[in-house]
Amino acid sequence: MTSFVNIPEGSDFPLENLPYGVFSTKSNPRKRVGVAIGEHVLDLAGVAQLYAPAVQDALNSESLNLLMSLGHSAWNVVRTRTRELLLKGSVLEENQVLAQNVLIPQAEIELHLPAQIGDYTDFYSSIHHATNVGIMFRGKENALMPNWRYLPVGYHGRASSVVVSGTPIRRPFGQTLPVDGQPPVFGPCKLLDFELEVAFFVGGPGNQLGERISAEDAWQHVFGFTLMNDWSARDIQKWEYVPLGPFTSKNLGTTISPWVVPVAALEPFVVDNFPQEPAVFPYLKHERPFNFDIKLEISLKPEGGPESVISKSNYKYLYWTALQQIAHHTVTGCNVRPGDLMASGTISGETEDSYGSMLELSWRGSKTINLEGGATRKFLQDGDELIIRGRCERNGVRIGFGGCAGKVLPAIPL
Amino acid sequence: MTSFVNIPEGSDFPLENLPYGVFSTKSNPRKRVGVAIGEHVLDLAGVAQLYAPAVQDALNSESLNLLMSLGHSAWNVVRTRTRELLLKGSVLEENQVLAQNVLIPQAEIELHLPAQIGDYTDFYSSIHHATNVGIMFRGKENALMPNWRYLPVGYHGRASSVVVSGTPIRRPFGQTLPVDGQPPVFGPCKLLDFELEVAFFVGGPGNQLGERISAEDAWQHVFGFTLMNDWSARDIQKWEYVPLGPFTSKNLGTTISPWVVPVAALEPFVVDNFPQEPAVFPYLKHERPFNFDIKLEISLKPEGGPESVISKSNYKYLYWTALQQIAHHTVTGCNVRPGDLMASGTISGETEDSYGSMLELSWRGSKTINLEGGATRKFLQDGDELIIRGRCERNGVRIGFGGCAGKVLPAIPL
Repeated sequence: MTSFVNIPEGSDFPLENLPYGVFSTKSNPRKRVGVAIGEHVLDLAGVAQLYAPAVQDALNSESLNLLMSLGHSAWNVVRTRTRELLLKGSVLEENQVLAQNVLIPQAEIELHLPAQIGDYTDFYSSIHHATNVGIMFRGKENALMPNWRYLPVGYHGRASSVVVSGTPIRRPFGQTLPVDGQPPVFGPCKLLDFELEVAFFVGGPGNQLGERISAEDAWQHVFGFTLMNDWSARDIQKWEYVPLGPFTSKNLGTTISPWVVPVAALEPFVVDNFPQEPAVFPYLKHERPFNFDIKLEISLKPEGGPESVISKSNYKYLYWTALQQIAHHTVTGCNVRPGDLMASGTISGETEDSYGSMLELSWRGSKTINLEGGATRKFLQDGDELIIRGRCERNGVRIGFGGCAGKVLPAIPL
Repeated sequence: MTSFVNIPEGSDFPLENLPYGVFSTKSNPRKRVGVAIGEHVLDLAGVAQLYAPAVQDALNSESLNLLMSLGHSAWNVVRTRTRELLLKGSVLEENQVLAQNVLIPQAEIELHLPAQIGDYTDFYSSIHHATNVGIMFRGKENALMPNWRYLPVGYHGRASSVVVSGTPIRRPFGQTLPVDGQPPVFGPCKLLDFELEVAFFVGGPGNQLGERISAEDAWQHVFGFTLMNDWSARDIQKWEYVPLGPFTSKNLGTTISPWVVPVAALEPFVVDNFPQEPAVFPYLKHERPFNFDIKLEISLKPEGGPESVISKSNYKYLYWTALQQIAHHTVTGCNVRPGDLMASGTISGETEDSYGSMLELSWRGSKTINLEGGATRKFLQDGDELIIRGRCERNGVRIGFGGCAGKVLPAIPL
């Protein structure tokens, strides 16, 4: 089965992917929902009349929230029909005028946040990352906090400062404590970092306040996945985060990739869940494997310099699954809504070349990260562009995520 | 100057108050914006045509977000005109048919959340509360964390679980650690608590990501105030909150009072800012006094029993002002948006009868709180209704906040 749309070899966006995004064009600045196919985007608003009536409003919407709210069977209906329309010999191929209008080169579109994010939650679900941070700040003996293997530790993040790939990030000013026991100082962040994460958008109708979602049922509430860079001001974080957690060190900006890859596209790449010891409480148990072999790659490109791959990690290193994250998030009755964003936390592998942050790669600034062309880094410098890429790959099929990129702008003095 | 609307002596809602809310009625279920006056609400959608054209869309809206976004001078225009319309001899009084339609008894309305809350932030700005908690958990020597007097400690909360007064709150299930060093257990929360807080809604157009709002300019971004009960599962909180802060122990529900009292109504009750030592960084400095003498009162009403006042506190005990909270929130470039909610944190006074939580009133369960009729409490029991009330009062004028109430429902077993 092939598409009538040209899909270059090695494209992130073959027929097997069909990720959703929100885009506009110069000639039509209205935000609308689209699906990436090869080097084009299919404008779903432009073909909504070719879908079942129940989903047409969602396809005519300015964000993905409505589609997300419709739930699993509606997502299948849309995905199946989109695939049909893109196949050789489809009604869309036959209607050349329409096809010309609704298949837009990606080079001509501007991508926006795919959804209005009601709430954004960040977990801390990579055991290698949590262990690394623990060793650095508390020593090897007490690396993992006592609660870490019992519950997916997480915290509420800032929804307003989640931005789409390509948005520059300003180096922040803030308070830091350069010398323990001395007063803090105020100035530009000196330890600006990224965090390699993967996030998912919540779908389905959501639950009511006071209701739980079990881990077994939680798969119905996962719409799809994006890449994320959770920019972090490490020096500001260290001073502010006790006792209520990270705050201004994180809300300076959080970047996500623009395309939301549906769970259905990832299912062929499912792998066993990470072994958990001790056994988790029943509310966190689920039979379904919900871990995925998503290869992740981090590149750093200094201003005017060449791009260097500085780390390679994988989504499959996560200890806690997205389903456990949802079950824990709602265990006390918190209501989740379609369009909520939940992120994995930094994903680090076991080895030094798979760490998901500069903090770990430079081991708190004690090691140098070497870049192509001879430049070195310990933390991010002004003008650095940080790019996260992700893909699943097997038998020549690649499910790509597109890029999650952002460039560091210099701090603005007061 | 008196109103043609009857305002009973001691009403929370005289002409000097004019708080905003969102309401519906049985005969007209559309949510709409109103102003409380005496025992009535003025339906602003119904009189929008009597206001300046620039504010009419906001008055015809289903939430206060649009009015909040218009900024300070528009708020003054609306407030001045509302007052005019309610005075004796106004065009509204003269148009008896209209007046009859748009002045609705509060007994006949249902109140809703006043705004779509984009993001909710909770601060920790009462020095007496932070000190009490510090003494309980770390001893008298280290009661205040080193950062506490340098920055308004805060964290991102959950917006979806903010509910309006009257919404029942379900006792949550969750993980707790009854015995240090032993494995955690899963079950219903045993230490359910309230937190007495006052919150404000952000107004004005908001700032762009990467921009700061100075403490001096922040007054333009405060629309108005509500009361808040930040329900807290203390046993769950203790186990989960290290190192990223409270999470499921808080997102079980957060109650706010339905009426948003404009800053203009509070200005006659302004008092000196709390003295701060050491001096704060320049970005946190402001000349304007922005502290208010708001009397706060907490009542507990067991199922079928009489109501007891268990504590009396005051907004003026806050160490950090709302303006400093905004300046700190945005110092690293976080964008705030109209409709964002920022809360004070638990407000405790210096004396035991002014503490803002059961945790403090029962001193971590070591003391008994005596209620009318002989009942006692250490933490909240099923069926308990918790009511927070607030008012400014001087020379017979009372600016009331209405009530912030919620009843505890029993936990639902798995």
